This record gives sequence, C-alpha cells and structure tokens, in this order.
Amino acid sequence: MDTTAGSVITVGLGGRSYPIHFGVDILGNLPRLAREAGLGGRAVIVTNETVGPLYCSAVVEVLEQGGIRTASLLLPDGEEHKHLGTIQRIIDFLLEQGADRRTWLVALGGGVIGDMVGFAAAVFLRGVPFVQVPTTLLAQVDSSVGGKTGVNHPSGKNLIGAFHQPRFVLVDVATLMTLPEREYLGGFAEVLKYGIVLDGTFFDYIEEHQRQILDRDRETLLQLTRRCCELKAMVVERDEREEGMRAVLNYGHTLGHAVEALTAYRSYTHGEAVAMGMVAATRVSAHFGCCSTAEAERVRRIIVASGLADRLPPFSRDEYRRAILKDKKMKEGALTLVLNEGIGGFRLQPVTDIDAILDVCGIGG
Amino acid sequence: MDTTAGSVITVGLGGRSYPIHFGVDILGNLPRLAREAGLGGRAVIVTNETVGPLYCSAVVEVLEQGGIRTASLLLPDGEEHKHLGTIQRIIDFLLEQGADRRTWLVALGGGVIGDMVGFAAAVFLRGVPFVQVPTTLLAQVDSSVGGKTGVNHPSGKNLIGAFHQPRFVLVDVATLMTLPEREYLGGFAEVLKYGIVLDGTFFDYIEEHQRQILDRDRETLLQLTRRCCELKAMVVERDEREEGMRAVLNYGHTLGHAVEALTAYRSYTHGEAVAMGMVAATRVSAHFGCCSTAEAERVRRIIVASGLADRLPPFSRDEYRRAILKDKKMKEGALTLVLNEGIGGFRLQPVTDIDAILDVCGIGG
Repeated sequence: MDTTAGSVITVGLGGRSYPIHFGVDILGNLPRLAREAGLGGRAVIVTNETVGPLYCSAVVEVLEQGGIRTASLLLPDGEEHKHLGTIQRIIDFLLEQGADRRTWLVALGGGVIGDMVGFAAAVFLRGVPFVQVPTTLLAQVDSSVGGKTGVNHPSGKNLIGAFHQPRFVLVDVATLMTLPEREYLGGFAEVLKYGIVLDGTFFDYIEEHQRQILDRDRETLLQLTRRCCELKAMVVERDEREEGMRAVLNYGHTLGHAVEALTAYRSYTHGEAVAMGMVAATRVSAHFGCCSTAEAERVRRIIVASGLADRLPPFSRDEYRRAILKDKKMKEGALTLVLNEGIGGFRLQPVTDIDAILDVCGIGG
Repeated sequence: MDTTAGSVITVGLGGRSYPIHFGVDILGNLPRLAREAGLGGRAVIVTNETVGPLYCSAVVEVLEQGGIRTASLLLPDGEEHKHLGTIQRIIDFLLEQGADRRTWLVALGGGVIGDMVGFAAAVFLRGVPFVQVPTTLLAQVDSSVGGKTGVNHPSGKNLIGAFHQPRFVLVDVATLMTLPEREYLGGFAEVLKYGIVLDGTFFDYIEEHQRQILDRDRETLLQLTRRCCELKAMVVERDEREEGMRAVLNYGHTLGHAVEALTAYRSYTHGEAVAMGMVAATRVSAHFGCCSTAEAERVRRIIVASGLADRLPPFSRDEYRRAILKDKKMKEGALTLVLNEGIGGFRLQPVTDIDAILDVCGIGG
C-alpha cells in the first residue's frame, strides 16, 4: 500500500462538505489541496510554542513555494489558554497582518489550537475559511472533524463557540512520532470510544493490534485514524448541530469533563479523563442492563493495559454532582447519559437521579 | 386600520425563517409570540441603562404573567461598549443564572444591544435562540433584520461577529416616542437609504410624508418600518451571507464607517455618518453617470431639510484613505462601492483609484 500517496474521505454536509486527507509525510500536499479547495493566496498559520518549532517552518516553506503568502502566530501551549482572551489575540494579529475575507487560517496543532483557530475563523469578519492540520492523535481522530469550535469559560469547557466547518483536514500520521507518550495515550482513549459505542469490529481490531498501536506503527495509525474519522463523519452527517445522535460522541465525557473541571484542567489530559469516564460509563451501562460485566471488564482491561488510569480521582460526591450539573449537557434538570449497548452500540439514557449514578460509579457520599 | 392588532411579514430563510411583527403598544404580545416560536419557559432580557428604565419592567411583567421565568441584565449604553469584553460579561451573567440551551435571550434596545445580544446568543453553548425587540428607528428598520451580529474592534466596526437569525422580531413603534431626536434622525437616514437604492416609489412617499415622519405619526411609522423591513428581507433572502446583493445595504456606509472611525464613534451617530456618506455617494454616482445631479440634489435636500448634516468632517485625504482601507469591505486591493442608479436602483462598482473617489467627494489632498 502506497501510503504517501494518501487516501481521502469526505464529510458530507451539503454545501459545507469537505475532505479529510490521510497519509505519511504529506505536509507537502498543502498548496495543491488549498488550490483544490478554492483558497486564495494568503494564509495565516496559527500554532503553539510546542508544535511550532517542529512543523511550522516546514508548513511555511511548502506554502510559500506554492505561491501562498504566509504569516505565523505562535500561541502559548495549554488548555488554560483556551479562552476568549486568546481569540482576541488571534484577531488582533489577523488585523495587524491586514487579513481580509479571503485570508484563510491554518490550525497547526492539537485540539486546543483547532478549537480556537476554528472559532477565530468563525467570528473574524463573520467567517473566513480555515483548514485543520492536526498534529495529535486526539485532534486527528476527534476534534478536527465535525466543525465544533470554541473556548472554555471558568464555569466549564467549550461553553463559548460556534459550528464552523474547515475547508479540508490534512491528517499526517508522521506528526504523531513527536507526540509525548501521555498525549498519545490520551488520543488512544478517544480511539477506543469509537469502537465501544459505534463499531464492535473496530474494537476487536484495536484489541488485536494493541502492540502495533502502542509502537505507533504508521500503517496501523493510518487504518486507525481513517476508521475513526469515517465513524465520526457518519455521526456528524446525521446530526451536524448536535440535536440528537451526535451526543454519542460524548460517551465517557460527562464524568470526564467533571474530572477535568475538578482538577482545573491541570492533572489529566482530556483523553486520560475520558478514559476514566468511559470505565465509569461501562459500569453504569451494566447497571442499566445495556452490557454484561464481562464486556465492561473488556473495556477496563484494554484501558489499563495501555497504561491509562481507570479510577476516578477521589473528590466528594458533592463536588462531582456540582461539576456535572454545571455541564452544558444538562437540559432543564434532566441529564442525558450515553451508555454502551454491548460493545459497538449505544443508548441515550435520560437520568434525573444523579446520586444513584454516582453510587454505581463508586463515588461515595 | 386597527394598528394595535398588528401586522406581520416573514423573512424567508428556509429553516431559519422568522416573522417580524409590527404594531403600536404590542409588547404584551411577547408571551404568545414566544410560544408560537417554540420558545421555552426561561428568558434572559438584555438591555441598557437608557432603555431598561423605560421598558424592561413592562417586558418582565408580561413575560412573567405569561408563565416565563425571567432575569434581566442592564449593560452600559453606547457603541464604545460594543466589544468582546461585553460579550464575555453577558455570558458570565448567563452562566451565573444557570442558563442552558433552552434559555432564550431578548435583545431590548437599539442596534448595539441587538448586535451584541445576537452575537452572545450565537456563541453561548454554540448557539441559543434570541428575539429582537428593537426600540430605536435604526434598529427597527435595519439592524434587527438579517441576522448580522457582532462587536467592534479597535481597528474597525463589526470586525468580529456571526450570522445568527432571531426567532422573531417585535417592532413596537410606540417605543419610538421616547427616542431622542438625534437618534430618531439617524434612523431616518437608514430609512432614506432603502428609498434611494431599492424603491423610488418609497422615496416619493418619504418626501410626501416628511412632516408626519418628523412628527413621529404612528400610522406613518408603521408604514415606514414595515416597508423598510420588507425591502431588507427581500435583499437578505437573496443573499443571506453577504456574498453579493446584500452589499447594497452598505450604500453610504463606506464613507459613513470612515467618519465614525475617524471620530472614534463619538461625534456622530451611525445614521448621521451614513447620511453624510449617502450625500457623498450620490456625488460619486453622478460622477459615474448613474444618476443626474438633480437626483443627487433631491437626496441632499431631504437630508438637509430633516436636520441632518450633508458635509463630511474635515479630515485629511490620508486619514480618509487609511480609514477606508481598514474597512472590511476591501477585498485584496479592490473596493466595491454601492452607487445609486437614478433614485430607486443601485450598481456595485469596483474601484481601485480611491484618490479619484475622494476628489469627487470634495476631500482635498
């Protein structure tokens, strides 16, 4: 298989459809893909202080060689910078550079960069084009697909944002070779999520290829990222604005977000928190009769075997309850939980008795 | 004609279509209209320190009587508060109040309130519903129709924003009785704009009813606001995202925005600046052979007769040029001017030689 030739899938959203390109060492394709997407002669690359030194000069070089003028902005790295103030900073930079409606943005980095650059692109001049070049496993399989953009608020994650689809996404799995192990494993948690609630055969594949995945085998990573994006695209196509099915993607996220909020986004990566949330979700699923305890154990085992933690940090029940109640998925008093039906299916379960759920998760009074 | 019974037009935008209701003393209809629009039991009213004391308690009362829980936020009054910091403040308030995705916002006030509340609604939880209750003539005929929302940046007006359509608009012309004369005349400038570039018969009507308009006759105001909204709706339906025809609504705005920016939004109301810009635009139109000097004079005469200024403030050519070049309507070096074809028609005119245009407008070297 000639991987560097790349493969492509399409996220089908009518007039907002866009392609996701997969390959190894394919950053050089950027100018051609930009032309194919109808993007003009001026790009602003937004990245962070960690990813920038690794890939920004390469991206600048290929774009400039392709006849595209560029400017680059390096933001500080970290979820704590994902707030409205940084959006203001991106917009200040765009205006300093004389950006206009035909200028397009490149989000070069992980999920935080993608969410912020996408949101800045959504609101700058009421919307300019942007492309995603995700460089983390998490961003490649999750946050770069679906058009959700936004920033955090002290009260919770992603409370401010917009739906804004990229013109295309370029997934170069070679960029994963420089990813720190913790970041990589966090991304793996989201990969697992797709298997658990959407595709049992894919979950089998992950179990069988666990060694290659942990070794970051490029061929395996191409299969992995592509299947995740196919699954996410399928969900997003059916429910772009998160009015129904798209909620499945929040599997493990109710408690995951609570853990992140309770630890002020400092102790765990998003994926690590989601892994804990997924283990808890399997327990709740078993409690509701959606899966067997053996299936719940199968999920827990692969999480632990890959080096991720399965236990929720020891905050009090009150703290968890408050963190969950602040989450935006609460709709006038009823919380909708995503449960796994066996392995490979899901059910949306409205819940009013949060204490009973916390009991099942082993969160004491 | 039973005006209090109200009349209604529809802005046809597919799934985002919404009605505009017109009448005299019709604030009491709010709960019924909210129910018809499918809006739930919780509303947050956002207004300012000028409009709030006049109408907020009435709005709160009718909503609460209609079974809708309310909370109100009073913002400081003025264009200088139309920035991202105030959006943050609105969102802080929404979260303090425990707002969720079913909470809807009420923009009670003029264009600044409407633009900010609409933008906050667009980005809070990636989009919640909002309704417009415009209380200025400008907002009733212009800013409450079309879904443009946003805030200013030190570099220029409305550089940050989103397209977000309201669920409905309630135009109560009785609220215009408390409007200061300058604000009222500024709104009248935008009324004139519709006649000049979209409807010559409407321009005739305005000329013939100038006395009733200046006296704020309610019957005349109902005709006036309704016709302006019909014309704007027609334009927006054809070009929701401002990719073509919608530019006609910027007639008089290129120089108008420049005047506002040069005077730091302090010396003139938006409408006053647009009035000067329109007089300049008629001169440029005459220069390009789009209208006669008699037609240009007819526009200038009604502007002066209503008490609006027709002369641009004496900044240097360099200052005007720089202000125009910063305006977001510049696309890679070419400026598109909106000219009037006679009275009642328009032409979009690409211009590269800005100095020649400034000459025609009497702006010296």
